[in-house]
Amino acid sequence: MSWHNPVIQPLLTDFYQITMAYSYWKNGKKDEIAVFDLYFRKNPFGGEFTIFAGLSACLDFLNNWKISDEDIEYLKKNLPPTTEEEFFTFLKTIDPGSVELWAVPEGSIVFPKVPLIRVEGPLPVVQLLETTLLNLVNFASLVATNAARFRLAAGMEKVLLEFGLRRAQGPDGGLSASKYCYLGGFDGTSNVLAGKLYDIPVKGTMAHAFVSSFTSIDEGRVGTLKHFKNGEAKELYPIARAWLKKVAPLLSVLEQEVNSGELVAFSAYAAAFPGSFLALVDTYHVLRSGVPCYCAVALALNDFGYRASGMRLDSGDLAYLSIEVRKKLKIVAEKLDAPWIAKSLIVASNDINEDTLLSLKQQGHSIDAFGIGTHLVTCQKQPALGCVFKLVELNKRACMKLSQDIEKITIPSKKVVYRLYGADGMPALTHAQEYTVDLLKRTDEAVPALGGRVLCRHAFDEGKRAYVLPSKVETLLRPYWKDSKICQSLPTLKEIQTNLREDLQRLRPDHIRPLNPTPYKVALSGELYTFMHHLWLENMPIGELA
Amino acid sequence: MSWHNPVIQPLLTDFYQITMAYSYWKNGKKDEIAVFDLYFRKNPFGGEFTIFAGLSACLDFLNNWKISDEDIEYLKKNLPPTTEEEFFTFLKTIDPGSVELWAVPEGSIVFPKVPLIRVEGPLPVVQLLETTLLNLVNFASLVATNAARFRLAAGMEKVLLEFGLRRAQGPDGGLSASKYCYLGGFDGTSNVLAGKLYDIPVKGTMAHAFVSSFTSIDEGRVGTLKHFKNGEAKELYPIARAWLKKVAPLLSVLEQEVNSGELVAFSAYAAAFPGSFLALVDTYHVLRSGVPCYCAVALALNDFGYRASGMRLDSGDLAYLSIEVRKKLKIVAEKLDAPWIAKSLIVASNDINEDTLLSLKQQGHSIDAFGIGTHLVTCQKQPALGCVFKLVELNKRACMKLSQDIEKITIPSKKVVYRLYGADGMPALTHAQEYTVDLLKRTDEAVPALGGRVLCRHAFDEGKRAYVLPSKVETLLRPYWKDSKICQSLPTLKEIQTNLREDLQRLRPDHIRPLNPTPYKVALSGELYTFMHHLWLENMPIGELA
Repeated sequence: MSWHNPVIQPLLTDFYQITMAYSYWKNGKKDEIAVFDLYFRKNPFGGEFTIFAGLSACLDFLNNWKISDEDIEYLKKNLPPTTEEEFFTFLKTIDPGSVELWAVPEGSIVFPKVPLIRVEGPLPVVQLLETTLLNLVNFASLVATNAARFRLAAGMEKVLLEFGLRRAQGPDGGLSASKYCYLGGFDGTSNVLAGKLYDIPVKGTMAHAFVSSFTSIDEGRVGTLKHFKNGEAKELYPIARAWLKKVAPLLSVLEQEVNSGELVAFSAYAAAFPGSFLALVDTYHVLRSGVPCYCAVALALNDFGYRASGMRLDSGDLAYLSIEVRKKLKIVAEKLDAPWIAKSLIVASNDINEDTLLSLKQQGHSIDAFGIGTHLVTCQKQPALGCVFKLVELNKRACMKLSQDIEKITIPSKKVVYRLYGADGMPALTHAQEYTVDLLKRTDEAVPALGGRVLCRHAFDEGKRAYVLPSKVETLLRPYWKDSKICQSLPTLKEIQTNLREDLQRLRPDHIRPLNPTPYKVALSGELYTFMHHLWLENMPIGELA
Repeated sequence: MSWHNPVIQPLLTDFYQITMAYSYWKNGKKDEIAVFDLYFRKNPFGGEFTIFAGLSACLDFLNNWKISDEDIEYLKKNLPPTTEEEFFTFLKTIDPGSVELWAVPEGSIVFPKVPLIRVEGPLPVVQLLETTLLNLVNFASLVATNAARFRLAAGMEKVLLEFGLRRAQGPDGGLSASKYCYLGGFDGTSNVLAGKLYDIPVKGTMAHAFVSSFTSIDEGRVGTLKHFKNGEAKELYPIARAWLKKVAPLLSVLEQEVNSGELVAFSAYAAAFPGSFLALVDTYHVLRSGVPCYCAVALALNDFGYRASGMRLDSGDLAYLSIEVRKKLKIVAEKLDAPWIAKSLIVASNDINEDTLLSLKQQGHSIDAFGIGTHLVTCQKQPALGCVFKLVELNKRACMKLSQDIEKITIPSKKVVYRLYGADGMPALTHAQEYTVDLLKRTDEAVPALGGRVLCRHAFDEGKRAYVLPSKVETLLRPYWKDSKICQSLPTLKEIQTNLREDLQRLRPDHIRPLNPTPYKVALSGELYTFMHHLWLENMPIGELA
């Protein structure tokens, strides 16, 4: 597989899964067959959609699940001395091959209450998997959703780069963030190991320390460069210096205002990377030093047959600065007859979040690419997704967890999920002519017929129901793990990214707009609705309005 | 070492560290000796203190740093074809033995601007380490600080358990969170692998799925239990059922109101864990089912010679419920002459954050232990700490990064840090009689003399200065990595936790109070102040008020 997920040890779980496993074993319930649903109750970030991610990692976890003797020894020390020895023998025989896992395809756009993963198997075995599956899905889906939101906020045509490694939750937090930001719609990462492991394009040029490590005393050290075509080697710096004399007056800057160290630093970088020169221009003063130096070095590179890439802004007012920088580039382009320089990339990267991207778009700016770190990978707006893993069936008996909080009531039974697509002019659950709705059914119900009348009911609101006439029916929950094997072919990260990008563009825009998005409808079949409400009545506590 | 830090690959870094390394190499700067400071500018969570963590992981990273041939192959593919082959040979010869690392001891209480880590060595080598060091320190320090704040909010005498694995940033995010929450003052974790790797006590009992997986049909399956003393085996469930008949009327509950499945579930768990019975009591109804069942099973266990531990509340109003539960326990204790049951532990665990802990303390409650997950490990109040890594000296020349934002100006030079302690009645920098201040000096300055007059200056505010008479001088920055070796003995996690607990209790309470804490003073020596402001003038751009 191209995913290279880390090998996850079975003990990466909550201790209560172990104590429960022992209690099930001890009390004659080890072979009861349980069905658990993994789902979330509320979309993150105040939005109305979520990107499901982490499935490939879950499958690799199952594929490699093996409790070791060392693990058993550790558990023996941590369970009370009354624990029966045979339990440890039982633990060693546990095999996730006894479990079946169905899921929504990775990278799908998903909604609250829909089972993203359904696991069926012996009760203690399924519970032993719970925490790890949640761990692998929760952050993956959260950060992929965040990345997709940043993508929508920036616009489909912008370049988005993930720069979050230094602020992520440790080494693997950083790797997960890079992987799932790429899945969610980013074009590249600064994280070299993520690039290597997951085949993500890696990007990056220089930091402020690089620029400030050069001073005018380094002039003589700047390397030579060979002409792209004729191979003639010359020193780049004196040529850049000469261009600066021409550029400075065009930009209303005195040559003395320009920081000499910056010109040396840019020349040094250009000598090393003549084909991909991208300069960090805000170490001293963007408009009075950084941009003149960039232009001078870009023009020098042009003399060597190379085209400069552009520059990065890492502070200040990004909308204003990017527009000013573009104006300066246009002046230079025109006065020095170098039209290509006006098209230099402008990359921006200072503490950007989703709101910054939206606000920049509204104000107007001249930025081509964004480098985004902290707020992307830590999901500042909401740092956790609350996926839960709930028992819905045990030994063919439907289970339902009641709660005074209606949001926390589980939808009972082993279920299937269909996404129904409407078409123009048809009666719809929503008021739009085109619609989509996700429909939960019990597994023994028939697949909704194309063009037939399908009853869709709100799970808890008696009055909310509608007939829909689907023009297309998509099965969302599919088998992924069965008989100890992964039983679907898994797409690559890049393929998932591409599909998601298309899906996002097809989704009704009111579901994804940043302000007051419309909730997407997730409905129950008439049969499931009736079944659930019967079970609810049967299980209701005495004297409680719930 | 007892820390078991994950082996971190050298490529877990930002790509610009590689491109900069090539540019340094290409432009004759590969042997220049650089000094970088790792520090933060602002305490997290609106507080005035931070716990420094991640040092042991940084040292292990240095100890294992080795770029592989496979890494080199990957870099070759990702650097432009103009990259000179000799650079890759140079990369292979890089050895972190050429670097020296000084640091503040792990688990220290630290403050803005103080160098937590100082790295000195060849410029490209130090830069290659930057991202990884930041990654290892940022989240570790953030979550340790969060844990310490939760500890202060809950009170020193409460039991605090970390339950965050399912919401952390992936597998290693979860491991890091467990490790550093323990360092910051938590008593245990639910994360079994963290327990195994880092020797942290693991805790946990049962989930709602456990309770709801039992119904009255499971009555006959509940295991037998041997009497603690005489070894006689009997069925526990019928005895618990008999006790329920006595307990229910005492609690003004009808026996039919009690969920039979819950009594079976508790009996099953008690049969498996007679010496550590802790019941989750909110699956059906805390006061009308959970508590009566707990009391019945606890009384049954008592008949077998075992003492029940207590119960866990995972929903509802925790202050109110804990007080009500305690009242019920006291009634049972009194009426059934079982005083021990009144002392049952009450554990609470529903979406708790620092503010909940503070509010509970203010309202009054009867909770003994807290299980805390999401908001602890994701650091909801502020999900990132902004540690930076800045060049302060290059080839013995002090470097200073200027900025229009005064907070972002770096303090130049290779520095040492002392913590000065005052004593009663002495002139102090603060208005309290007892004080502490951190003092930054250049490395060639003398150590502050005990009882001598030491000038302490605010870095940027000319008017803020004071003489202090230290009664104790502590050296904060110490050598940890030198000549390819870790050169200090490292304390265990538990030792760090214990020291930190004492340090927090010694710190002036106004620095750690939750509302409007007093900033701790970090000062510059007179010499460093003068040196910095000279350098600033020398480097000031023309025509700029900064």
